[in-house]
Amino acid sequence: MMLRVANPRAKGVIIKMETNPLTSYELGANPGVRMTDGGEVVIILDQTQLPNREVRYILSEPGELFEAIAELQVRGAPAIGIFAAYALAVISAHIRAFTFDDFYNELAERAEYLNSARPTAVNLARATGRVLAAVRENSDLPVPELPLVIRREAYAIHREDIAMCRAISEYGLTLVKAGDGILTHCNAGPLATSRYGTGLGAILLAQERGIPLHAYVDETRPLLQGARLTAYELHNAGVDTTLICDSAASLVMRKGKINAVFVGCDRVARNGDVANKIGTSGAAILAKHYGIPFYVFCPSSTLDPECATGADIVIERRDPDEIRTKFFAEPIAPLGVRAYNPAFDVTDGELITAIVTEKGILRAPYSESLRVLYE
Amino acid sequence: MMLRVANPRAKGVIIKMETNPLTSYELGANPGVRMTDGGEVVIILDQTQLPNREVRYILSEPGELFEAIAELQVRGAPAIGIFAAYALAVISAHIRAFTFDDFYNELAERAEYLNSARPTAVNLARATGRVLAAVRENSDLPVPELPLVIRREAYAIHREDIAMCRAISEYGLTLVKAGDGILTHCNAGPLATSRYGTGLGAILLAQERGIPLHAYVDETRPLLQGARLTAYELHNAGVDTTLICDSAASLVMRKGKINAVFVGCDRVARNGDVANKIGTSGAAILAKHYGIPFYVFCPSSTLDPECATGADIVIERRDPDEIRTKFFAEPIAPLGVRAYNPAFDVTDGELITAIVTEKGILRAPYSESLRVLYE
Repeated sequence: MMLRVANPRAKGVIIKMETNPLTSYELGANPGVRMTDGGEVVIILDQTQLPNREVRYILSEPGELFEAIAELQVRGAPAIGIFAAYALAVISAHIRAFTFDDFYNELAERAEYLNSARPTAVNLARATGRVLAAVRENSDLPVPELPLVIRREAYAIHREDIAMCRAISEYGLTLVKAGDGILTHCNAGPLATSRYGTGLGAILLAQERGIPLHAYVDETRPLLQGARLTAYELHNAGVDTTLICDSAASLVMRKGKINAVFVGCDRVARNGDVANKIGTSGAAILAKHYGIPFYVFCPSSTLDPECATGADIVIERRDPDEIRTKFFAEPIAPLGVRAYNPAFDVTDGELITAIVTEKGILRAPYSESLRVLYE
Repeated sequence: MMLRVANPRAKGVIIKMETNPLTSYELGANPGVRMTDGGEVVIILDQTQLPNREVRYILSEPGELFEAIAELQVRGAPAIGIFAAYALAVISAHIRAFTFDDFYNELAERAEYLNSARPTAVNLARATGRVLAAVRENSDLPVPELPLVIRREAYAIHREDIAMCRAISEYGLTLVKAGDGILTHCNAGPLATSRYGTGLGAILLAQERGIPLHAYVDETRPLLQGARLTAYELHNAGVDTTLICDSAASLVMRKGKINAVFVGCDRVARNGDVANKIGTSGAAILAKHYGIPFYVFCPSSTLDPECATGADIVIERRDPDEIRTKFFAEPIAPLGVRAYNPAFDVTDGELITAIVTEKGILRAPYSESLRVLYE
């Protein structure tokens, strides 16, 4: 992990080789997050304005980088991690310090500030922590070379995520055949991760390879990630896409249109129970009823060895106005009516046909098969 | 069914007795449809503006009566029937005719005009047909007395619906106990029917009698009848009400909050399969998974003896923009993405614990128990 560059500012070409920025091919056609090759700015696609406006922001100030996370302009656990690493790379170029300690302390302060934008996002703190560790490992380098170390680490984080998504997608592709109908819930696509995404990866990879699939997309109330983001990503990629209300999944399954359900997930317990967007467990129960396989896609890092079962996963309750008023021209429910707005639900492992990770396709009994991820 | 009044205009008090308008007690606190005692106007609560504005319209012109049906200001099969009968009563007072045939022909023309406002609404044509039949049965009366016949028939239609809803609600009340949590989907309340409603009747009756229940209301995408109408009706009646997204039903059931699911329905096949609002079959499958009883509430007239099974029921496909744009401040999905918007789905009889009608609680095997309704 050591990097040796005598005078980075004098040798632009060498630096560029050394930092090895991501190519257009690696990034894909429409990346949600990227950094300019010189590490000057981070460019994001504002996810809150999709699908009606494709607005890109060019960010370099700490305050606006913080806001991008806090305001959910960047969302999706892996995407937030990638963004935070790039944010530190950009910020670090402006740190004025003569000693390693001064540089490191200011960087650590900036990292903590970014982490506070979404305190519960594990990938955020993990990515900034990894950047800090890379800097510590290079404490013998001249201070002006440290921003280069950070850029290199940020590119590595992004590149590893792309490789992981690709591996998950390749495994996923073995689970479908040409002509299949795939139901998906919420958004586990490139915007939330990188390049192919997790739950959508196999569908996008199939499209790239000319294997026709038909995607049915749950709109995913209350925040409509399916309608706003998944339909946007699949439609843009040319995938044959049909949007449905979450409540229409049963009818679509009954009509024989669905051959498999593909979803991402936020956390996996040791027994194979998974937490994912509210509505996932319902889709799994319907799939079981109709005899349709139900697949969960996630990086192996999503397994939480601290969780024995789904009962250990705390369900976040969000603002009831996400149901009653958000997105609507006027409130949809009378003032004063209570609304219950859980962000996630837990799907029992026994409803899951397989959990697809970059390390392979894991099947029941999960208390056995998941051990490969943490032992 | 004969009515004898020598000169109705000279004996106002007697007419009032004879037409026997509905009392406030019969109507309930907030009726969606009612007629003034003299039959001058129909007063409706515009359901399209709920829950944000309680707008009442006072209607007497044929054109505005037609619009009220066509624009869904009045909706719900029984409510449309009651409204149409009242509409004919009001219109008939303005018919200038000297012979029975002239009167009847103009009335029949008006009825046909009203029917065309929603050609697929069986209750609409049934109610206007019943009014016409009552007039035919009284062809020997002086023409000026015929509007009175119509008013009387319209009140009878309304009163019978109230009695039917009350009977269904009384049966429903035997299925719950104090403290139960009831999940409901779409709207089968007083606004769609009269007084108590069908699916909501037991809950409202329980509230009246001081039996505490907790209602969980699916918002019911895409048209949000649960959020807009059911939550409005239950909240106004003082019922402890919690609105949820359709996709949260699985979690709420898993948490043990739901003791029974109550829904209305649009059609019952001979084998007990029922057609109801999209999402009903999903709720039934979840209920079965969690071991929760699933009850369907409907008038016995909802049974269609022509339908052997649910496969005979044609599912209406509605405008995809009900999903993509209706109610929203801006579109929720990218332009050009296909959306599939079925209005109903079919719930298999085997998922239904009982079908509750005004004639009693019917249980499987439905091919046997439903015979009492049509043989």
